[in-house]
Amino acid sequence: MLLDFTFQNPTRIHFGRTALDKLAEELNNYGRNVLLVYGKNSIKRIGLYDKVIKILSDCGKQVVELAGINSNPRYSQVMEGARLVRENKTDLILAVGGGSVIDCCKGISMAAYCTEDAWQKYWINREPINNPVIPIGTILTMAGTGSEMNSGSVVTNEEKRIKQGVVQPLWIMAPKFSILNPEYTYSVPRLQMASGIFDTFSHLMEQYCSGDDDCTTDYLIEGLMRSLIVSARKAMVNPEDYEARSNIMWCATMGLNRILGVSKSQDWEVHNIEHQLGAFTDCPHGVGLAIISPAYYRLIFRYGLHRFVRFARNIWEVPADFGNDEQTALEGIRRFEMFIHELRMPRTLREIGATEEMLPEIAKTALKAGGYHTVTTDEILQVLKNSF
Amino acid sequence: MLLDFTFQNPTRIHFGRTALDKLAEELNNYGRNVLLVYGKNSIKRIGLYDKVIKILSDCGKQVVELAGINSNPRYSQVMEGARLVRENKTDLILAVGGGSVIDCCKGISMAAYCTEDAWQKYWINREPINNPVIPIGTILTMAGTGSEMNSGSVVTNEEKRIKQGVVQPLWIMAPKFSILNPEYTYSVPRLQMASGIFDTFSHLMEQYCSGDDDCTTDYLIEGLMRSLIVSARKAMVNPEDYEARSNIMWCATMGLNRILGVSKSQDWEVHNIEHQLGAFTDCPHGVGLAIISPAYYRLIFRYGLHRFVRFARNIWEVPADFGNDEQTALEGIRRFEMFIHELRMPRTLREIGATEEMLPEIAKTALKAGGYHTVTTDEILQVLKNSF
Repeated sequence: MLLDFTFQNPTRIHFGRTALDKLAEELNNYGRNVLLVYGKNSIKRIGLYDKVIKILSDCGKQVVELAGINSNPRYSQVMEGARLVRENKTDLILAVGGGSVIDCCKGISMAAYCTEDAWQKYWINREPINNPVIPIGTILTMAGTGSEMNSGSVVTNEEKRIKQGVVQPLWIMAPKFSILNPEYTYSVPRLQMASGIFDTFSHLMEQYCSGDDDCTTDYLIEGLMRSLIVSARKAMVNPEDYEARSNIMWCATMGLNRILGVSKSQDWEVHNIEHQLGAFTDCPHGVGLAIISPAYYRLIFRYGLHRFVRFARNIWEVPADFGNDEQTALEGIRRFEMFIHELRMPRTLREIGATEEMLPEIAKTALKAGGYHTVTTDEILQVLKNSF
Repeated sequence: MLLDFTFQNPTRIHFGRTALDKLAEELNNYGRNVLLVYGKNSIKRIGLYDKVIKILSDCGKQVVELAGINSNPRYSQVMEGARLVRENKTDLILAVGGGSVIDCCKGISMAAYCTEDAWQKYWINREPINNPVIPIGTILTMAGTGSEMNSGSVVTNEEKRIKQGVVQPLWIMAPKFSILNPEYTYSVPRLQMASGIFDTFSHLMEQYCSGDDDCTTDYLIEGLMRSLIVSARKAMVNPEDYEARSNIMWCATMGLNRILGVSKSQDWEVHNIEHQLGAFTDCPHGVGLAIISPAYYRLIFRYGLHRFVRFARNIWEVPADFGNDEQTALEGIRRFEMFIHELRMPRTLREIGATEEMLPEIAKTALKAGGYHTVTTDEILQVLKNSF
């Protein structure tokens, strides 16, 4: 069944090869002062920067830039953006990049007119927003986080070594519009592409691995998983396969625009662990998720055995009579792990620069939650050791 | 792949047993004058009418009522509502009922301040809306049409014997809010419940049966079909199974809130034929769809054989080696027909009052479209005869 919920997602999506043509009409809905936020040089390399600047100029906008946003966006960058918003009376924040850039922009929007310590108020205490926010538009260049159609913002406080997510109501913090052209994702390095694909898969797992009942949402999640697996395999062979990249992009958006998660209990412990892993190693988010997922699911699968049997059968086509239920579930997790290997990312924590000394600290500082089972510090440590 | 699209669905959904508690806060967003629109007596019988009137009164609203909306809403009722809107300076139209009541309200909203012949302009010429519209809120009592989260309005012009749908942009004509409590659907007669279930299934088929490529949307549609079949079977045994009725309600909403259809080519010919069937016989919409669907799909399946093989395998679990592809596809359609029989609705056009004389007229006046194949008048006549 579906839990009681309220859902409204107001983001307007412009999808496809011609999506950028809609930017000018969107810009006309906002005032003159635009803060343009992006990452390193990739949007210049693919020519997108010049196109966007031209459209902004043609629309008579006054543009201030904040460049160099990290792949794990930092709170110091949020603060820098907040200052620019106040100084320039920004009317619209335009994010051009992947989830990190967009998450950073949401942080800037929340923090700019916050009169208290924004980190403590929004990321730690997770208070509802009560100061004015600045509208955000996005032009997406990397698929994975779903940030282009949700209201979450994950930021790393580098001083405190905490990577933390906050979710505000969609109708306040979701982008007003997002421009999704799958072709912009072609130039992303293969590791980043794979990382984004697995980030999406992990969002689906986090929403799937909870609940003992029959719920429409789980069937939708299965549909997205099946589509993502097919398209991921094609994109690994040919990154410029438009069909595959368009499906991957839409799976990422649909996977975390809250239309799934809103109606059911969820897990999110893999993300909790990865956030601290990211804070300590600065690894790409999806890579961290992929490394720890198999060990995590092998730890918890007995607590939700029926769901992992279903996962094995409906997603990985494990035969119904594959030994007993535990064997069926484990075979599903094994095939899931083989799929991760197909994405050709680092497979161990060691490879991404984690040290044995970090593990207890990561286990201690990770938030403890879970779907079928609430993990302990010791259990997280075991997951980390098994992934080392 | 996904076709280029723009998508924004602004409807706020309040879902669950406590959803009506949100009505007062929604009402506070609108002015004093409310037009309350409903059908026959069912909302009074289940006590919903009294609850809604009390909330409206507590919120200080001035209420005018338009009751008795038919299951195929009539253009004369749209015109009557439009007059009431103008006379009472209505600020909000509140629809309490199923898709027919909601569709009627959208018609009223479009027609009230239209200075031309609204039927000709919007339903026949399908012009984009260019007059002020009145916001709509809904309280849903029957699941099926998806009208609670889309911008479509199907109305029967009884003088002209034409039942016609119009779709405006979601951000203009979709309800501002919709209250979905699955318990309100318990009292719907079993035939109406089954009709709604099949209406939803047909929406999924219309969006599924087109396209030769690999598209994420088709996987989502399959997810909804699988969930709907499971819950429909449970609800036929026990109509007060909350789990089943909540899933059915959400399948209906998700099935036509455009998040599926927006990205791919579609069919909709079964709906085109049924609309004229409804105009001639006034049969419940889902019943008409169910009667003609098997004959329609047996007519067109060879034009999209790969899709009907996939339908057979992914939805009806027809074994991969079930004879050749044509046999596999036909076995899928046969199992689909058996599922329709499980819904225990009339199985022939004869049973719903159609006469042989009507058939050529229905075939002639039905819009001709299609996904894998654009049908001719003769082919529609054959479908009708095979369903007679």
